[in-house]
Amino acid sequence: MEKLVVIKIGGNIIDDEAKLSAFLKDFAAIEGKKILVHGGGKLATKLAAQLGVEQQMIDGRRITDAETLKIVTMVYAGAINKNIVAQLQANKCNAIGLSGADGNVIKAHKRVHPTIDYGFVGDVDEVNTVLLKSLLEQNIAVVLAPITQDGNGQLLNTNADTIAQETAKALSSIYKVDLVYSFEKSGVLLDANDDSTVIKTINPASYKELKEKQLIFAGMIPKLDNAFTALNSGVTRVIIGKAEQLHHILNGNAGTTILHE
Amino acid sequence: MEKLVVIKIGGNIIDDEAKLSAFLKDFAAIEGKKILVHGGGKLATKLAAQLGVEQQMIDGRRITDAETLKIVTMVYAGAINKNIVAQLQANKCNAIGLSGADGNVIKAHKRVHPTIDYGFVGDVDEVNTVLLKSLLEQNIAVVLAPITQDGNGQLLNTNADTIAQETAKALSSIYKVDLVYSFEKSGVLLDANDDSTVIKTINPASYKELKEKQLIFAGMIPKLDNAFTALNSGVTRVIIGKAEQLHHILNGNAGTTILHE
Repeated sequence: MEKLVVIKIGGNIIDDEAKLSAFLKDFAAIEGKKILVHGGGKLATKLAAQLGVEQQMIDGRRITDAETLKIVTMVYAGAINKNIVAQLQANKCNAIGLSGADGNVIKAHKRVHPTIDYGFVGDVDEVNTVLLKSLLEQNIAVVLAPITQDGNGQLLNTNADTIAQETAKALSSIYKVDLVYSFEKSGVLLDANDDSTVIKTINPASYKELKEKQLIFAGMIPKLDNAFTALNSGVTRVIIGKAEQLHHILNGNAGTTILHE
Repeated sequence: MEKLVVIKIGGNIIDDEAKLSAFLKDFAAIEGKKILVHGGGKLATKLAAQLGVEQQMIDGRRITDAETLKIVTMVYAGAINKNIVAQLQANKCNAIGLSGADGNVIKAHKRVHPTIDYGFVGDVDEVNTVLLKSLLEQNIAVVLAPITQDGNGQLLNTNADTIAQETAKALSSIYKVDLVYSFEKSGVLLDANDDSTVIKTINPASYKELKEKQLIFAGMIPKLDNAFTALNSGVTRVIIGKAEQLHHILNGNAGTTILHE
Protein backbone atom coordinates (compact mmCIF):
# COMPACT_ATOMS: atom_id res chain seq x y z
CA MET A 1 0.00 0.00 0.00
CA GLU A 2 1.12 3.50 -0.80
CA LYS A 3 1.48 6.03 2.02
CA LEU A 4 -0.89 8.92 2.71
CA VAL A 5 -0.47 11.64 5.32
CA VAL A 6 -3.54 13.39 6.75
CA ILE A 7 -2.59 16.47 8.75
CA LYS A 8 -4.89 18.63 10.82
CA ILE A 9 -3.90 22.18 11.71
CA GLY A 10 -5.78 24.37 14.15
CA GLY A 11 -6.25 28.01 14.95
CA ASN A 12 -2.85 28.49 16.56
CA ILE A 13 -1.27 28.05 13.11
CA ILE A 14 -4.02 29.59 10.98
CA ASP A 15 -4.10 32.82 12.98
CA ASP A 16 -0.35 33.38 12.72
CA GLU A 17 0.61 34.44 9.19
CA ALA A 18 4.31 33.65 9.59
CA LYS A 19 3.70 30.26 11.22
CA LEU A 20 1.12 29.32 8.59
CA SER A 21 3.43 30.30 5.76
CA ALA A 22 6.33 28.26 7.25
CA PHE A 23 4.04 25.29 7.85
CA LEU A 24 2.70 25.36 4.27
CA LYS A 25 6.25 25.41 2.93
CA ASP A 26 6.96 22.28 4.97
CA PHE A 27 3.68 20.68 3.94
CA ALA A 28 4.40 21.37 0.26
CA ALA A 29 7.76 19.63 0.63
CA ILE A 30 6.24 16.34 1.88
CA GLU A 31 6.69 13.76 -0.82
CA GLY A 32 3.78 11.59 -1.79
CA LYS A 33 0.07 11.80 -1.16
CA LYS A 34 -1.25 14.24 1.41
CA ILE A 35 -4.39 15.84 2.80
CA LEU A 36 -4.54 18.96 4.95
CA VAL A 37 -7.56 19.59 7.17
CA HIS A 38 -7.80 23.07 8.62
CA GLY A 39 -9.86 24.45 11.44
CA GLY A 40 -11.19 27.94 11.76
CA GLY A 41 -9.13 30.22 13.96
CA LYS A 42 -10.13 33.64 15.18
CA LEU A 43 -11.03 35.21 11.83
CA ALA A 44 -14.65 34.01 11.98
CA THR A 45 -15.10 35.29 15.54
CA LYS A 46 -13.58 38.62 14.53
CA LEU A 47 -15.82 38.93 11.47
CA ALA A 48 -18.89 38.02 13.55
CA ALA A 49 -18.01 40.78 16.01
CA GLN A 50 -17.52 43.30 13.19
CA LEU A 51 -20.93 42.37 11.77
CA GLY A 52 -22.60 42.48 15.18
CA VAL A 53 -23.45 38.77 15.11
CA GLU A 54 -23.35 37.59 18.70
CA GLN A 55 -21.78 34.24 19.52
CA GLN A 56 -24.39 32.10 21.20
CA MET A 57 -23.29 29.77 23.94
CA ILE A 58 -25.49 27.18 25.67
CA ASP A 59 -24.01 25.29 28.63
CA GLY A 60 -20.56 26.40 27.55
CA ARG A 61 -21.04 25.06 24.02
CA ARG A 62 -20.87 27.29 20.99
CA ILE A 63 -24.03 27.29 18.87
CA THR A 64 -23.97 27.77 15.10
CA ASP A 65 -27.02 29.86 14.24
CA ALA A 66 -27.92 30.77 10.64
CA GLU A 67 -25.89 34.00 10.66
CA THR A 68 -22.85 32.28 12.17
CA LEU A 69 -23.10 29.52 9.57
CA LYS A 70 -22.92 32.14 6.79
CA ILE A 71 -19.83 33.62 8.41
CA VAL A 72 -17.99 30.32 8.95
CA THR A 73 -18.81 29.23 5.39
CA MET A 74 -17.28 32.44 4.03
CA VAL A 75 -14.26 32.35 6.32
CA TYR A 76 -13.44 28.63 6.40
CA ALA A 77 -14.39 27.54 2.86
CA GLY A 78 -13.59 30.93 1.29
CA ALA A 79 -10.90 33.04 2.92
CA ILE A 80 -8.81 30.45 4.78
CA ASN A 81 -9.19 27.56 2.34
CA LYS A 82 -8.37 29.58 -0.79
CA ASN A 83 -5.44 31.36 0.82
CA ILE A 84 -3.94 28.03 1.87
CA VAL A 85 -4.42 26.65 -1.64
CA ALA A 86 -2.86 29.73 -3.28
CA GLN A 87 0.14 29.52 -0.93
CA LEU A 88 0.60 25.83 -1.67
CA GLN A 89 0.51 26.57 -5.41
CA ALA A 90 3.19 29.21 -4.83
CA ASN A 91 5.25 26.47 -3.15
CA LYS A 92 4.85 24.29 -6.27
CA CYS A 93 2.43 21.96 -4.53
CA ASN A 94 -0.69 21.47 -6.63
CA ALA A 95 -3.60 21.61 -4.18
CA ILE A 96 -7.37 21.64 -4.32
CA GLY A 97 -9.53 23.15 -1.61
CA LEU A 98 -12.81 21.43 -0.84
CA SER A 99 -15.62 21.64 1.64
CA GLY A 100 -17.48 18.46 2.48
CA ALA A 101 -20.23 19.57 0.08
CA ASP A 102 -17.88 19.52 -2.91
CA GLY A 103 -18.17 16.27 -4.81
CA ASN A 104 -20.14 14.99 -1.82
CA VAL A 105 -16.77 14.36 -0.20
CA ILE A 106 -18.13 14.36 3.36
CA LYS A 107 -21.75 13.66 4.11
CA ALA A 108 -23.02 14.72 7.50
CA HIS A 109 -26.23 15.26 9.42
CA LYS A 110 -27.30 18.04 11.74
CA ARG A 111 -26.31 17.04 15.25
CA VAL A 112 -29.03 15.42 17.29
CA HIS A 113 -28.65 15.92 21.02
CA PRO A 114 -31.20 15.20 23.77
CA THR A 115 -30.91 18.57 25.50
CA ILE A 116 -28.81 21.01 23.44
CA ASP A 117 -29.66 22.34 19.97
CA TYR A 118 -26.22 23.04 18.54
CA GLY A 119 -27.74 24.74 15.50
CA PHE A 120 -26.13 24.09 12.13
CA VAL A 121 -23.45 21.73 13.40
CA GLY A 122 -22.72 18.56 11.45
CA ASP A 123 -21.71 15.09 12.56
CA VAL A 124 -19.95 13.08 9.86
CA ASP A 125 -21.72 10.08 8.30
CA GLU A 126 -19.53 9.12 5.39
CA VAL A 127 -16.37 10.07 3.49
CA ASN A 128 -16.41 9.65 -0.31
CA THR A 129 -13.08 7.97 -1.00
CA VAL A 130 -13.60 7.69 -4.77
CA LEU A 131 -13.16 11.38 -5.52
CA LEU A 132 -10.40 11.83 -2.93
CA LYS A 133 -8.48 8.90 -4.41
CA SER A 134 -8.92 10.28 -7.93
CA LEU A 135 -7.45 13.63 -6.84
CA LEU A 136 -4.60 12.08 -4.83
CA GLU A 137 -3.73 9.83 -7.79
CA GLN A 138 -3.35 12.99 -9.88
CA ASN A 139 -0.79 14.15 -7.28
CA ILE A 140 -3.07 16.88 -6.05
CA ALA A 141 -2.97 17.65 -2.32
CA VAL A 142 -6.47 18.00 -0.89
CA VAL A 143 -7.21 20.86 1.53
CA LEU A 144 -10.41 20.26 3.49
CA ALA A 145 -12.39 23.05 5.14
CA PRO A 146 -14.56 22.10 8.16
CA ILE A 147 -17.88 22.70 6.39
CA THR A 148 -20.08 19.80 5.33
CA GLN A 149 -23.63 19.33 4.03
CA ASP A 150 -26.55 17.05 4.73
CA GLY A 151 -27.55 16.16 1.16
CA ASN A 152 -30.64 18.35 1.41
CA GLY A 153 -28.94 21.65 0.69
CA GLN A 154 -28.01 22.47 4.27
CA LEU A 155 -24.40 23.40 4.96
CA LEU A 156 -23.11 22.44 8.42
CA ASN A 157 -20.24 23.65 10.61
CA THR A 158 -18.16 20.57 11.44
CA ASN A 159 -15.29 19.84 13.80
CA ALA A 160 -11.98 19.70 11.91
CA ASP A 161 -10.50 17.01 14.20
CA THR A 162 -13.44 14.76 13.34
CA ILE A 163 -13.08 15.44 9.62
CA ALA A 164 -9.39 14.54 9.79
CA GLN A 165 -10.11 11.36 11.72
CA GLU A 166 -13.00 10.19 9.51
CA THR A 167 -11.04 10.96 6.33
CA ALA A 168 -8.00 9.07 7.61
CA LYS A 169 -10.16 6.10 8.63
CA ALA A 170 -12.02 5.94 5.32
CA LEU A 171 -8.85 6.17 3.23
CA SER A 172 -7.02 3.53 5.26
CA SER A 173 -8.71 0.90 3.09
CA ILE A 174 -6.69 2.27 0.15
CA TYR A 175 -3.55 3.76 1.69
CA LYS A 176 -1.21 3.26 4.62
CA VAL A 177 -2.35 6.35 6.53
CA ASP A 178 -0.50 8.51 9.04
CA LEU A 179 -2.83 10.89 10.86
CA VAL A 180 -1.09 13.95 12.33
CA TYR A 181 -2.74 16.32 14.78
CA SER A 182 -0.83 19.54 15.03
CA PHE A 183 -0.93 20.89 18.52
CA GLU A 184 0.39 23.84 20.59
CA LYS A 185 2.57 21.52 22.66
CA SER A 186 5.37 19.28 21.40
CA GLY A 187 3.26 16.16 21.95
CA VAL A 188 1.68 14.32 24.86
CA LEU A 189 3.60 15.54 27.90
CA LEU A 190 4.30 13.98 31.29
CA ASP A 191 4.49 17.50 32.68
CA ALA A 192 2.03 19.80 30.87
CA ASN A 193 4.33 22.77 31.52
CA ASP A 194 7.52 21.18 30.29
CA ASP A 195 7.86 20.62 26.56
CA SER A 196 10.87 18.40 27.12
CA THR A 197 8.74 15.68 28.76
CA VAL A 198 7.21 14.44 25.50
CA ILE A 199 6.19 10.80 25.60
CA LYS A 200 7.74 9.40 22.43
CA THR A 201 5.34 6.54 21.80
CA ILE A 202 2.12 5.31 23.36
CA ASN A 203 0.56 1.93 22.68
CA PRO A 204 -2.53 0.39 24.32
CA ALA A 205 -0.48 -1.20 27.13
CA SER A 206 1.50 1.93 27.99
CA TYR A 207 -1.66 4.06 27.66
CA LYS A 208 -3.39 1.90 30.28
CA GLU A 209 -0.43 2.29 32.59
CA LEU A 210 -0.16 6.06 32.05
CA LYS A 211 -3.86 6.44 32.83
CA GLU A 212 -3.72 4.22 35.91
CA LYS A 213 -0.77 6.16 37.30
CA GLN A 214 -2.58 9.40 36.38
CA LEU A 215 0.49 10.57 34.47
CA ILE A 216 -1.54 12.02 31.59
CA PHE A 217 -3.28 15.38 31.71
CA ALA A 218 -7.04 14.66 31.77
CA GLY A 219 -7.69 16.96 28.79
CA MET A 220 -5.60 14.65 26.60
CA ILE A 221 -7.67 11.56 27.29
CA PRO A 222 -10.48 12.21 24.76
CA LYS A 223 -7.83 13.01 22.11
CA LEU A 224 -5.98 9.78 22.83
CA ASP A 225 -9.19 7.76 22.92
CA ASN A 226 -9.98 9.16 19.46
CA ALA A 227 -6.48 8.27 18.29
CA PHE A 228 -6.97 4.66 19.37
CA THR A 229 -10.37 4.58 17.65
CA ALA A 230 -8.65 5.70 14.43
CA LEU A 231 -5.95 3.03 14.85
CA ASN A 232 -8.61 0.39 15.45
CA SER A 233 -10.26 1.46 12.18
CA GLY A 234 -7.17 0.91 10.06
CA VAL A 235 -5.05 4.06 10.45
CA THR A 236 -1.38 3.05 10.74
CA ARG A 237 -0.05 5.75 13.06
CA VAL A 238 -1.48 8.76 14.83
CA ILE A 239 1.03 11.45 15.72
CA ILE A 240 0.42 14.44 17.95
CA GLY A 241 2.97 17.22 17.79
CA LYS A 242 3.92 20.80 16.95
CA ALA A 243 3.18 21.95 13.41
CA GLU A 244 6.54 23.75 13.45
CA GLN A 245 8.26 20.37 13.68
CA LEU A 246 6.37 18.73 10.82
CA HIS A 247 9.31 16.99 9.18
CA HIS A 248 10.67 15.70 12.49
CA ILE A 249 7.19 14.48 13.38
CA LEU A 250 6.87 12.55 10.13
CA ASN A 251 10.33 11.05 10.62
CA GLY A 252 9.43 9.93 14.12
CA ASN A 253 11.92 12.34 15.70
CA ALA A 254 9.39 14.61 17.39
CA GLY A 255 5.88 14.46 18.78
CA THR A 256 4.07 11.53 20.33
CA THR A 257 3.38 8.57 18.08
CA ILE A 258 0.38 6.49 19.03
CA LEU A 259 0.55 2.93 17.85
CA HIS A 260 -1.88 0.10 17.54
CA GLU A 261 0.26 -2.28 19.57
CA MET B 1 -17.19 14.17 -29.41
CA GLU B 2 -19.30 14.21 -26.29
CA LYS B 3 -21.28 17.34 -25.45
CA LEU B 4 -20.44 19.79 -22.67
CA VAL B 5 -22.49 22.80 -21.57
CA VAL B 6 -20.78 25.77 -19.93
CA ILE B 7 -23.29 28.16 -18.39
CA LYS B 8 -22.57 31.53 -16.86
CA ILE B 9 -25.02 33.11 -14.44
CA GLY B 10 -24.79 36.65 -13.16
CA GLY B 11 -25.94 38.73 -10.24
CA ASN B 12 -29.57 38.98 -11.39
CA ILE B 13 -29.94 35.26 -10.63
CA ILE B 14 -27.56 34.97 -7.69
CA ASP B 15 -29.20 37.81 -5.76
CA ASP B 16 -32.70 36.35 -6.08
CA GLU B 17 -33.07 33.27 -3.87
CA ALA B 18 -36.17 31.94 -5.63
CA LYS B 19 -34.74 32.47 -9.13
CA LEU B 20 -31.44 30.86 -8.13
CA SER B 21 -33.18 27.87 -6.62
CA ALA B 22 -35.35 27.38 -9.75
CA PHE B 23 -32.33 27.78 -12.01
CA LEU B 24 -30.29 25.23 -10.04
CA LYS B 25 -33.13 22.73 -10.28
CA ASP B 26 -33.09 23.19 -14.07
CA PHE B 27 -29.29 23.01 -14.19
CA ALA B 28 -29.29 19.80 -12.15
CA ALA B 29 -31.71 18.25 -14.65
CA ILE B 30 -29.42 18.82 -17.65
CA GLU B 31 -28.17 15.46 -18.82
CA GLY B 32 -24.50 15.02 -19.54
CA LYS B 33 -21.45 17.03 -18.72
CA LYS B 34 -21.83 20.58 -17.42
CA ILE B 35 -19.98 23.49 -15.88
CA LEU B 36 -21.56 26.44 -14.08
CA VAL B 37 -19.66 29.71 -13.77
CA HIS B 38 -21.12 32.21 -11.35
CA GLY B 39 -20.50 35.90 -10.89
CA GLY B 40 -20.73 37.82 -7.69
CA GLY B 41 -23.96 39.71 -7.21
CA LYS B 42 -24.67 42.28 -4.54
CA LEU B 43 -23.66 40.25 -1.47
CA ALA B 44 -20.01 41.34 -1.68
CA THR B 45 -20.97 45.01 -2.04
CA LYS B 46 -23.34 44.67 0.91
CA LEU B 47 -20.70 42.98 3.08
CA ALA B 48 -18.14 45.63 2.13
CA ALA B 49 -20.59 48.35 3.21
CA GLN B 50 -21.28 46.56 6.52
CA LEU B 51 -17.54 46.32 7.17
CA GLY B 52 -16.94 49.93 6.17
CA VAL B 53 -14.74 48.97 3.20
CA GLU B 54 -15.26 51.65 0.57
CA GLN B 55 -15.60 50.65 -3.07
CA GLN B 56 -12.87 52.38 -5.01
CA MET B 57 -13.65 53.55 -8.49
CA ILE B 58 -11.15 55.03 -10.95
CA ASP B 59 -12.49 56.40 -14.24
CA GLY B 60 -15.72 54.53 -13.62
CA ARG B 61 -13.90 51.23 -13.16
CA ARG B 62 -14.16 49.27 -9.93
CA ILE B 63 -10.79 48.65 -8.23
CA THR B 64 -10.11 45.54 -6.16
CA ASP B 65 -7.97 46.65 -3.23
CA ALA B 66 -6.62 44.18 -0.64
CA GLU B 67 -9.67 44.49 1.65
CA THR B 68 -12.09 44.07 -1.24
CA LEU B 69 -10.18 41.00 -2.43
CA LYS B 70 -10.63 39.40 1.01
CA ILE B 71 -14.36 40.11 0.81
CA VAL B 72 -14.88 38.79 -2.72
CA THR B 73 -12.85 35.66 -1.90
CA MET B 74 -15.10 34.97 1.09
CA VAL B 75 -18.32 35.76 -0.73
CA TYR B 76 -17.66 34.28 -4.18
CA ALA B 77 -15.52 31.22 -3.33
CA GLY B 78 -17.14 30.69 0.09
CA ALA B 79 -20.75 31.77 0.53
CA ILE B 80 -22.08 31.72 -3.04
CA ASN B 81 -20.05 28.81 -4.37
CA LYS B 82 -20.76 26.46 -1.46
CA ASN B 83 -24.45 27.33 -1.35
CA ILE B 84 -24.78 26.57 -5.04
CA VAL B 85 -22.96 23.24 -4.57
CA ALA B 86 -25.12 22.27 -1.59
CA GLN B 87 -28.30 23.09 -3.54
CA LEU B 88 -27.12 21.04 -6.52
CA GLN B 89 -26.40 18.10 -4.20
CA ALA B 90 -29.94 18.46 -2.85
CA ASN B 91 -31.14 18.21 -6.47
CA LYS B 92 -29.19 14.95 -6.87
CA CYS B 93 -26.57 16.61 -9.05
CA ASN B 94 -23.09 15.81 -7.77
CA ALA B 95 -21.15 19.07 -8.02
CA ILE B 96 -17.77 20.40 -7.00
CA GLY B 97 -17.09 24.07 -6.36
CA LEU B 98 -13.71 25.41 -7.37
CA SER B 99 -11.88 28.70 -7.58
CA GLY B 100 -9.22 29.07 -10.24
CA ALA B 101 -6.61 28.42 -7.55
CA ASP B 102 -7.94 24.92 -6.85
CA GLY B 103 -5.97 22.31 -8.76
CA ASN B 104 -4.49 25.24 -10.69
CA VAL B 105 -7.64 25.15 -12.77
CA ILE B 106 -7.30 28.72 -14.02
CA LYS B 107 -3.99 30.53 -14.06
CA ALA B 108 -4.11 34.27 -14.32
CA HIS B 109 -1.92 37.33 -13.90
CA LYS B 110 -2.61 40.67 -12.25
CA ARG B 111 -3.99 42.98 -14.92
CA VAL B 112 -1.44 45.25 -16.54
CA HIS B 113 -2.90 48.48 -17.85
CA PRO B 114 -1.01 51.59 -19.06
CA THR B 115 -2.98 54.08 -16.98
CA ILE B 116 -5.28 52.32 -14.49
CA ASP B 117 -4.18 50.09 -11.59
CA TYR B 118 -7.15 47.78 -11.20
CA GLY B 119 -5.68 46.30 -8.02
CA PHE B 120 -6.05 42.57 -7.50
CA VAL B 121 -7.85 41.86 -10.77
CA GLY B 122 -6.81 38.84 -12.81
CA ASP B 123 -6.65 38.28 -16.55
CA VAL B 124 -6.80 34.61 -17.53
CA ASP B 125 -3.70 32.95 -19.00
CA GLU B 126 -4.57 29.27 -19.09
CA VAL B 127 -7.27 26.76 -18.20
CA ASN B 128 -6.14 23.34 -16.90
CA THR B 129 -8.29 20.94 -18.86
CA VAL B 130 -6.79 17.78 -17.31
CA LEU B 131 -8.40 18.18 -13.90
CA LEU B 132 -11.67 19.52 -15.33
CA LYS B 133 -11.90 16.54 -17.68
CA SER B 134 -11.17 14.12 -14.84
CA LEU B 135 -14.02 15.61 -12.78
CA LEU B 136 -16.46 15.74 -15.71
CA GLU B 137 -15.66 12.12 -16.57
CA GLN B 138 -16.69 11.22 -13.01
CA ASN B 139 -20.05 12.87 -13.79
CA ILE B 140 -19.36 15.71 -11.40
CA ALA B 141 -20.67 19.13 -12.41
CA VAL B 142 -18.03 21.82 -11.87
CA VAL B 143 -19.06 25.13 -10.28
CA LEU B 144 -16.46 27.85 -10.88
CA ALA B 145 -16.16 30.96 -8.70
CA PRO B 146 -14.63 34.06 -10.31
CA ILE B 147 -11.45 34.01 -8.20
CA THR B 148 -8.12 32.97 -9.70
CA GLN B 149 -4.46 33.04 -8.64
CA ASP B 150 -1.16 34.01 -10.20
CA GLY B 151 0.94 31.00 -9.17
CA ASN B 152 2.80 33.12 -6.63
CA GLY B 153 0.21 32.93 -3.87
CA GLN B 154 -1.82 35.95 -4.97
CA LEU B 155 -5.56 35.48 -5.36
CA LEU B 156 -7.20 37.66 -8.03
CA ASN B 157 -10.75 38.86 -8.65
CA THR B 158 -11.64 37.77 -12.18
CA ASN B 159 -14.49 38.47 -14.56
CA ALA B 160 -16.93 35.53 -14.67
CA ASP B 161 -17.79 36.05 -18.37
CA THR B 162 -14.11 35.69 -19.20
CA ILE B 163 -13.77 32.57 -17.07
CA ALA B 164 -16.75 31.01 -18.84
CA GLN B 165 -15.37 31.90 -22.24
CA GLU B 166 -11.82 30.70 -21.58
CA THR B 167 -13.07 27.47 -19.99
CA ALA B 168 -15.38 26.80 -22.94
CA LYS B 169 -12.57 27.51 -25.41
CA ALA B 170 -10.04 25.30 -23.64
CA LEU B 171 -12.43 22.37 -23.31
CA SER B 172 -13.56 22.55 -26.94
CA SER B 173 -10.52 20.44 -27.84
CA ILE B 174 -12.11 17.60 -25.85
CA TYR B 175 -15.86 18.22 -26.02
CA LYS B 176 -18.48 19.70 -28.32
CA VAL B 177 -19.09 22.81 -26.22
CA ASP B 178 -22.19 24.97 -25.89
CA LEU B 179 -21.48 28.23 -24.06
CA VAL B 180 -24.55 29.85 -22.52
CA TYR B 181 -24.59 33.36 -21.13
CA SER B 182 -27.56 33.94 -18.93
CA PHE B 183 -28.85 37.44 -19.26
CA GLU B 184 -31.66 39.71 -17.96
CA LYS B 185 -33.23 39.88 -21.42
CA SER B 186 -34.57 36.99 -23.49
CA GLY B 187 -31.65 37.22 -25.90
CA VAL B 188 -30.24 39.73 -28.37
CA LEU B 189 -33.18 42.03 -29.15
CA LEU B 190 -34.03 44.15 -32.16
CA ASP B 191 -35.88 46.46 -29.77
CA ALA B 192 -34.11 46.61 -26.38
CA ASN B 193 -37.46 47.28 -24.67
CA ASP B 194 -39.39 44.48 -26.29
CA ASP B 195 -38.55 40.94 -25.21
CA SER B 196 -40.54 39.53 -28.12
CA THR B 197 -38.02 40.86 -30.65
CA VAL B 198 -35.37 38.22 -29.91
CA ILE B 199 -33.11 37.47 -32.85
CA LYS B 200 -33.17 33.70 -33.03
CA THR B 201 -29.79 33.12 -34.65
CA ILE B 202 -26.85 35.27 -35.60
CA ASN B 203 -24.00 34.16 -37.84
CA PRO B 204 -21.08 36.24 -39.13
CA ALA B 205 -22.99 37.36 -42.25
CA SER B 206 -26.17 38.38 -40.41
CA TYR B 207 -24.06 40.02 -37.63
CA LYS B 208 -22.34 42.19 -40.24
CA GLU B 209 -25.70 43.21 -41.65
CA LEU B 210 -27.25 43.89 -38.22
CA LYS B 211 -24.28 46.09 -37.32
CA GLU B 212 -24.34 47.96 -40.65
CA LYS B 213 -28.03 48.69 -40.30
CA GLN B 214 -27.43 49.63 -36.64
CA LEU B 215 -30.14 47.20 -35.54
CA ILE B 216 -28.16 45.98 -32.54
CA PHE B 217 -27.91 47.88 -29.26
CA ALA B 218 -24.31 49.13 -28.99
CA GLY B 219 -23.85 47.56 -25.54
CA MET B 220 -24.32 44.11 -27.07
CA ILE B 221 -21.46 44.48 -29.55
CA PRO B 222 -18.59 43.57 -27.16
CA LYS B 223 -20.60 40.55 -25.97
CA LEU B 224 -21.20 39.40 -29.53
CA ASP B 225 -17.59 40.02 -30.52
CA ASN B 226 -16.57 37.80 -27.59
CA ALA B 227 -19.05 35.17 -28.71
CA PHE B 228 -17.52 35.07 -32.19
CA THR B 229 -14.04 34.86 -30.65
CA ALA B 230 -15.19 31.80 -28.70
CA LEU B 231 -16.68 30.26 -31.85
CA ASN B 232 -13.47 30.91 -33.73
CA SER B 233 -11.60 29.07 -30.97
CA GLY B 234 -13.61 25.88 -31.27
CA VAL B 235 -16.78 26.46 -29.25
CA THR B 236 -19.74 24.97 -31.15
CA ARG B 237 -22.53 27.36 -30.17
CA VAL B 238 -22.84 30.45 -27.99
CA ILE B 239 -26.31 31.13 -26.66
CA ILE B 240 -27.47 34.29 -24.92
CA GLY B 241 -30.76 34.12 -23.08
CA LYS B 242 -32.76 34.21 -19.86
CA ALA B 243 -31.67 31.81 -17.12
CA GLU B 244 -35.35 31.16 -16.41
CA GLN B 245 -35.66 29.59 -19.87
CA LEU B 246 -32.65 27.29 -19.55
CA HIS B 247 -34.20 24.17 -21.08
CA HIS B 248 -35.74 26.10 -23.97
CA ILE B 249 -32.40 27.79 -24.55
CA LEU B 250 -30.56 24.47 -24.71
CA ASN B 251 -33.20 23.06 -27.07
CA GLY B 252 -32.82 26.06 -29.37
CA ASN B 253 -36.36 27.28 -28.58
CA ALA B 254 -35.37 30.45 -26.74
CA GLY B 255 -32.54 32.94 -26.61
CA THR B 256 -30.19 33.99 -29.38
CA THR B 257 -27.90 31.31 -30.79
CA ILE B 258 -24.68 32.59 -32.25
CA LEU B 259 -23.18 30.32 -34.84
CA HIS B 260 -19.86 30.06 -36.55
CA GLU B 261 -21.36 30.20 -40.00
